[in-house]
Amino acid sequence: METLTGVGASAGIGIGRVMIVEEPTLEYVSHTVTDTEAEKARFQAAVDAYIEKTQAEAEAMKETVGEKEAEILTGHILMISDPGMTGQMTAAIDGGTCAEDALSQVCDMFASIFEGSGDELLMQRATDVRDIKTGILAKLLNKREVDLSKLPADTVVVTHDLTPSMTAGVKPGGIAGVITEVGGMTSHSAILARAMEIPAILSIPGVCSKLADGTQVIVNGTLGSVIAEPDEATLTQAEEARHAFIVQQGELKKFIGCATVTADGVHKELFANIGKPDDANQANDKDAEGIGLFRTEFLFMDSPTVPTEDQQFDAYKKTALIMKGKPVIIRTLDIGGDKDVPCLGMEKEDNPFMGFRAIRYCLAREDVYRTQLRALLRASAFGDIRIMVPLVTCVDEIRQVKALVKRYMEEFDREGVEYNPDIQVGVMMETPAAALVADLLAAEADFFSIGTNDLTGYTMAADRGNDRVRYLYNTYNPAVLRSIRNIIECGNAAGIMVGMCGEAAADPLLIPLWIAFGLGEFSVSATSVLATRKEIFGWTVEDAKELADRVMAMSTASEVYEALQAAHDARI
Amino acid sequence: METLTGVGASAGIGIGRVMIVEEPTLEYVSHTVTDTEAEKARFQAAVDAYIEKTQAEAEAMKETVGEKEAEILTGHILMISDPGMTGQMTAAIDGGTCAEDALSQVCDMFASIFEGSGDELLMQRATDVRDIKTGILAKLLNKREVDLSKLPADTVVVTHDLTPSMTAGVKPGGIAGVITEVGGMTSHSAILARAMEIPAILSIPGVCSKLADGTQVIVNGTLGSVIAEPDEATLTQAEEARHAFIVQQGELKKFIGCATVTADGVHKELFANIGKPDDANQANDKDAEGIGLFRTEFLFMDSPTVPTEDQQFDAYKKTALIMKGKPVIIRTLDIGGDKDVPCLGMEKEDNPFMGFRAIRYCLAREDVYRTQLRALLRASAFGDIRIMVPLVTCVDEIRQVKALVKRYMEEFDREGVEYNPDIQVGVMMETPAAALVADLLAAEADFFSIGTNDLTGYTMAADRGNDRVRYLYNTYNPAVLRSIRNIIECGNAAGIMVGMCGEAAADPLLIPLWIAFGLGEFSVSATSVLATRKEIFGWTVEDAKELADRVMAMSTASEVYEALQAAHDARI
Repeated sequence: METLTGVGASAGIGIGRVMIVEEPTLEYVSHTVTDTEAEKARFQAAVDAYIEKTQAEAEAMKETVGEKEAEILTGHILMISDPGMTGQMTAAIDGGTCAEDALSQVCDMFASIFEGSGDELLMQRATDVRDIKTGILAKLLNKREVDLSKLPADTVVVTHDLTPSMTAGVKPGGIAGVITEVGGMTSHSAILARAMEIPAILSIPGVCSKLADGTQVIVNGTLGSVIAEPDEATLTQAEEARHAFIVQQGELKKFIGCATVTADGVHKELFANIGKPDDANQANDKDAEGIGLFRTEFLFMDSPTVPTEDQQFDAYKKTALIMKGKPVIIRTLDIGGDKDVPCLGMEKEDNPFMGFRAIRYCLAREDVYRTQLRALLRASAFGDIRIMVPLVTCVDEIRQVKALVKRYMEEFDREGVEYNPDIQVGVMMETPAAALVADLLAAEADFFSIGTNDLTGYTMAADRGNDRVRYLYNTYNPAVLRSIRNIIECGNAAGIMVGMCGEAAADPLLIPLWIAFGLGEFSVSATSVLATRKEIFGWTVEDAKELADRVMAMSTASEVYEALQAAHDARI
Repeated sequence: METLTGVGASAGIGIGRVMIVEEPTLEYVSHTVTDTEAEKARFQAAVDAYIEKTQAEAEAMKETVGEKEAEILTGHILMISDPGMTGQMTAAIDGGTCAEDALSQVCDMFASIFEGSGDELLMQRATDVRDIKTGILAKLLNKREVDLSKLPADTVVVTHDLTPSMTAGVKPGGIAGVITEVGGMTSHSAILARAMEIPAILSIPGVCSKLADGTQVIVNGTLGSVIAEPDEATLTQAEEARHAFIVQQGELKKFIGCATVTADGVHKELFANIGKPDDANQANDKDAEGIGLFRTEFLFMDSPTVPTEDQQFDAYKKTALIMKGKPVIIRTLDIGGDKDVPCLGMEKEDNPFMGFRAIRYCLAREDVYRTQLRALLRASAFGDIRIMVPLVTCVDEIRQVKALVKRYMEEFDREGVEYNPDIQVGVMMETPAAALVADLLAAEADFFSIGTNDLTGYTMAADRGNDRVRYLYNTYNPAVLRSIRNIIECGNAAGIMVGMCGEAAADPLLIPLWIAFGLGEFSVSATSVLATRKEIFGWTVEDAKELADRVMAMSTASEVYEALQAAHDARI
């Protein structure tokens, strides 16, 4: 029995036998071509065949998995249809390079540029380019690609990287598990595995040579572990856990289409956090009632230049349209701190978390902020877009933002551009200062959303990225809970919506406290929407308040945690 | 008329004529010696003569300026009496090097090591070594050194660096001002200038060549500016300001020996902040009623190895003895963040202010903390020493410190070592978390002292060392003032002393707020003690409360600042 650990990118437990899946060998002999026109025709035929095949795969995936996942494949078609990329390839062929070399050289060049970026999203592009290269090479060399759709259901696929074309025909639950050598939580592999509800562990270096074909393994996608050759007891345990997980998932599905209410019928709003417009599809799939946090910095991080007003407008409008009139809370640029944005060329600081970031940067760089606010205003004509301002510490900042919004509205009035004149402008409550003046901010803001991650860090003066002080970074601390309670009470007193978009919004132990404090909106990751709805449904306000009264009289985080854990356990 | 700016290291206004003071040329011809014994004797005679001269200067300075300043000179004697230093010099002479070269080489080596450290305190040592070298070289070459004691009273000395030996005979007010090319707020030049009550501007690079002998200048030590060749109006203005400053200083002196009370007779404690035992003398001179903050990290920063229990004990005991039974609040090691301590070898962190520092470090490194707590306990037998714990965020931390103190008391009981069994253990209130749970901490701590500098930074999530966000680092923010008010109210409700040891304690605009909130103790720099006493004397609690009620209803820092400024101006 051996345990390997990696990134648990798709929850659930899979039990099955290993099948090592390698990309087909696509070896060829480089040669110089003289009839370059014929070679270009051969190349174009391969590209066309690849596009046709990929289009078919995308259609199939739309049926079996989902529209959003299929878009990964249509994205490949878009990439290879870009004349910038194929132009370089045909230019190489014009110079006498054979089609295989032309394809490989250009794809490898793009892949290495993307890979060197150090950014997870750009690195994902490297995988895309490699997948395109493999697909077209296979066509040039007339080889068949890997197809996982015909494997027995108890197969655990072990491969270097799970590509969209591999999984094209696989149905949800079609295989028992996936283990890869590369990839992270937001890689295509992870997105595909989650969409297919297949437990997946990514990023175990060299796993293709560590595990042999036919080995029995337990894939625990929740814990991120792989147990090879489990003993009888471990296997029985895993089977029970697998069953329990499936039952639980089934129960969560019952909450699709339900209202989000407490056990005594108090309605709450349940939104999802997203990073890109496409993520809104997943939010819809999980029955989120809106978007509570759209992190716009991903638009900037993923781009070599500052996205234009039109590019941003398209992204915001697309999100608004996907959400069909439901609320979409878009946080304005929250760069700095842990989020480096190459296209904005920020300076390195000694204490970036306490530095020139988020609204501080935006108010100093009105050129950048104007572009974003104008894009948001224009998009507000297409849905219930709301503007959220991060890292506010004082009333002056929200006043300044409102003045800018008003100015851009006047610009649009002159230009005859449509926008929502009643667009809401809210404050992300995530600094100790904001919590301390929540009553003053509530008089200026249209809504609050509590960012528990940063609020916890600043309140405890503890960087969650620092291993040595992470023990202090804990939302269960009485100081943090008091701060959150005060924010909710001040917002409710002023009659504005108070939401929460930090990780604590989905913490089943803390949900009764949020109900007791009177939180109105929960914004969680799409995969946590249904579990959060279920937790909210499990509490009456009265029971939650009784628990909160007990917990808020405690002095330490560990007392609080134990009491909340005990209360939670008592209800299962 | 030209304005130069530098570090205003000694307050006041001086008007006079420039005298460029250069160190005497101490040129010599290097030569090889054969009679090394004779050369060593010549060297030793020069050292002895230097020690004799320096001893005499120290005696004179003790009379004219003060005991503490004289210790800078006796420090030179100690350095040159160290066999480690002279041993290297005589060894060089044994090898045939002439005495001048032997002296210069060894002194230059030490100076460059100290200078390369980047630490202001160690860099000061470089100045000391250079001063020693100049002094002994002068003796070897039979030259007279600079003596400022015979200059006319309207002289403004402009020099590379003000050394203790230069100023040996100068009486307080003996010259009109000092301008130097190097040095900072804590350099010897600064200490000497302040002790002699001579306005001083340090750190104006190249000033010796920028100003000519005889030029009329206005030295404004309060603003840190030098105006050369002022016009008539500027001169008149400066003369008036100078007069006002002198009157004000005279008035402050009237507060020596007075009780610290509000206008309606409410008593407050007025303590001083210090960094080294010797600083306690200055605190006594300025009539401080105790030490409110002894920053012990200077003991560590100034040392190549971790100071032993005995070394620390000596420092704490010395301070207790100087203060003769008055309270001495000693803050335990507050390293990390902006304070690098070479002998503890800390790792560089991404966000040091939110990292592994202060009590977090001490609780993880019980070996280091035990040494300090034992030294403090032993010293507590010699005065009213109190222990203050920095960067507390939760009740657990103060409980852990109290448990350690109890354990070391038990060790001393077994060892038969004396200590104060009722020693107070207090909390430095400087994190948002501590402020939020001030009621819980008040139940555990013997006293509070509010560290307004860090409290402001953490609350506003703004690093005061970062130019681009310093506009947010402002104690006038309603958020910060509310936090401070809550701390004071919680401490008073629990019946423990609540003090303040950040810069805001001495801010004349804020003092009425502290009185209104019920602050019991003010700890300020020694030079601010009398001014703070005067401000406190200027307010009745009722007037202060009326002002506080108005101010605490405001929404922005600028409104608060303007109201406080207007209230202050109305009283002058």
